[in-house]
Amino acid sequence: MPEIKFFHPIEVRYGDLDPQGHLNNAKFLTFFEQARVQYFIHLGMFTGDQSFKDLSEILAEVRVTFLAPVQFDMPIKVGARVSRLGNKSMTIEQSIINTETEDVLATAEIIVVAYDYHAEKTIPIHDEWRKTIERFEGLP
Amino acid sequence: MPEIKFFHPIEVRYGDLDPQGHLNNAKFLTFFEQARVQYFIHLGMFTGDQSFKDLSEILAEVRVTFLAPVQFDMPIKVGARVSRLGNKSMTIEQSIINTETEDVLATAEIIVVAYDYHAEKTIPIHDEWRKTIERFEGLP
Amino acid sequence: MPEIKFFHPIEVRYGDLDPQGHLNNAKFLTFFEQARVQYFIHLGMFTGDQSFKDLSEILAEVRVTFLAPVQFDMPIKVGARVSRLGNKSMTIEQSIINTETEDVLATAEIIVVAYDYHAEKTIPIHDEWRKTIERFEGLP
Amino acid sequence: MPEIKFFHPIEVRYGDLDPQGHLNNAKFLTFFEQARVQYFIHLGMFTGDQSFKDLSEILAEVRVTFLAPVQFDMPIKVGARVSRLGNKSMTIEQSIINTETEDVLATAEIIVVAYDYHAEKTIPIHDEWRKTIERFEGLP
Repeated sequence: MPEIKFFHPIEVRYGDLDPQGHLNNAKFLTFFEQARVQYFIHLGMFTGDQSFKDLSEILAEVRVTFLAPVQFDMPIKVGARVSRLGNKSMTIEQSIINTETEDVLATAEIIVVAYDYHAEKTIPIHDEWRKTIERFEGLP
Repeated sequence: MPEIKFFHPIEVRYGDLDPQGHLNNAKFLTFFEQARVQYFIHLGMFTGDQSFKDLSEILAEVRVTFLAPVQFDMPIKVGARVSRLGNKSMTIEQSIINTETEDVLATAEIIVVAYDYHAEKTIPIHDEWRKTIERFEGLP
Repeated sequence: MPEIKFFHPIEVRYGDLDPQGHLNNAKFLTFFEQARVQYFIHLGMFTGDQSFKDLSEILAEVRVTFLAPVQFDMPIKVGARVSRLGNKSMTIEQSIINTETEDVLATAEIIVVAYDYHAEKTIPIHDEWRKTIERFEGLP
Repeated sequence: MPEIKFFHPIEVRYGDLDPQGHLNNAKFLTFFEQARVQYFIHLGMFTGDQSFKDLSEILAEVRVTFLAPVQFDMPIKVGARVSRLGNKSMTIEQSIINTETEDVLATAEIIVVAYDYHAEKTIPIHDEWRKTIERFEGLP
């Protein structure tokens, strides 16, 4: 499996914890989402000050494997890597890593579909995005 | 596929929405979690006023399929059904349904592992729980 | 002090709790917000399926007094009442009540300013809204 | 007013935004809370890997003034400063600042009460904590 090139550090907040004292399961999706948005910003596909209606992706499927609890005092980085580019959809592989120990705490496989929020319908992935991602990820 | 017998109504809150104006993807896990906890309470496996350390389950894997956006003004119910009981783990099937139209907005398959939060290790599913669940779900 | 006429029931979710095992302080604002939106819907000032850009209010100040912890298994209702109508701003009194015991768990005083999200500026409170609120709350 | 000496950077997450596209009001409390916890860790009053039951504070009152919207792409720091030490309670002044422009986006005044979560009752502020805070803040 090719390795993930993009990582984004995320601080675990007290407000992310649940009664078990560790990161609540729903917050894993928040962490993955944040790294995904930063990945798209990193690749120049979203500037961050546009309307979010221009962030043309919608989630179709999410699969998360929880490997170890994420604790408050752990330094965390979250990875993102497009592993498959279809016509209208792509697969993104993600992981949550303890920056200090390099332990993998969770992995995810996420399918997003290109979506025009203004027209409210799926669209083919922009050619420009396709090229940018292929280049960055070394996809064929 | 046997049908889900347990549903719990959940109100979409303004605070659950994201800039796209619909339910944020991470909140789907919050909805599934809430229905799961209510399912366990319904079956008498958790009273709700015990320590949450006694809610002996930990998530191992989550797979969510997003079928349609969940809007603020939709009446929602969330289903839960144990479909497989292993020695230490079980599979829970869940769904998010528009109560009015009966549209299925999302489905999930969730693997939880019986876990002793005090001892911090996995444990076999309590015999009593096993019987309660088998009886409720009509499992063999 | 005139009494609050509008209450909205809110279910405490497992996902609202923090490591102390009770409702996290930030979630009090989520509860107040949800009751406020439902208050505006109740008075016909927002339909719920419009764009949220048409919900013409912005928060200026919030003051919350925490009186007792909110537990997972407590049935809760959240009240809202406009107590003052200015030219561009209004004061809303809110409370979080244990429905069973009628214990007041928290109170809030919230100042919201009428705001045009499209034009991004404060505006006078619509005359129609003013009349609707005065009538409902028995304000002079 | 003496200036705030302790600031903690917080990244605005996509998951913190609401349908208006900016930081949801409840998240301001999450930001203040996170800076408060980091302040206590900074002063050696909490190690971060203890039980959170040992973080002996409970909120009594919160007053937030919202000065400007917090946007996704803003670099943010959140300040905390104990401005008053009573017998059992203290007042903490907080602010949310745009790190780049130094614009103050929100301020808060927060009253916390020393609390023994194990015994479930208020307690006098530990002498050691009192000295640590007085020294750090230059309080008389």
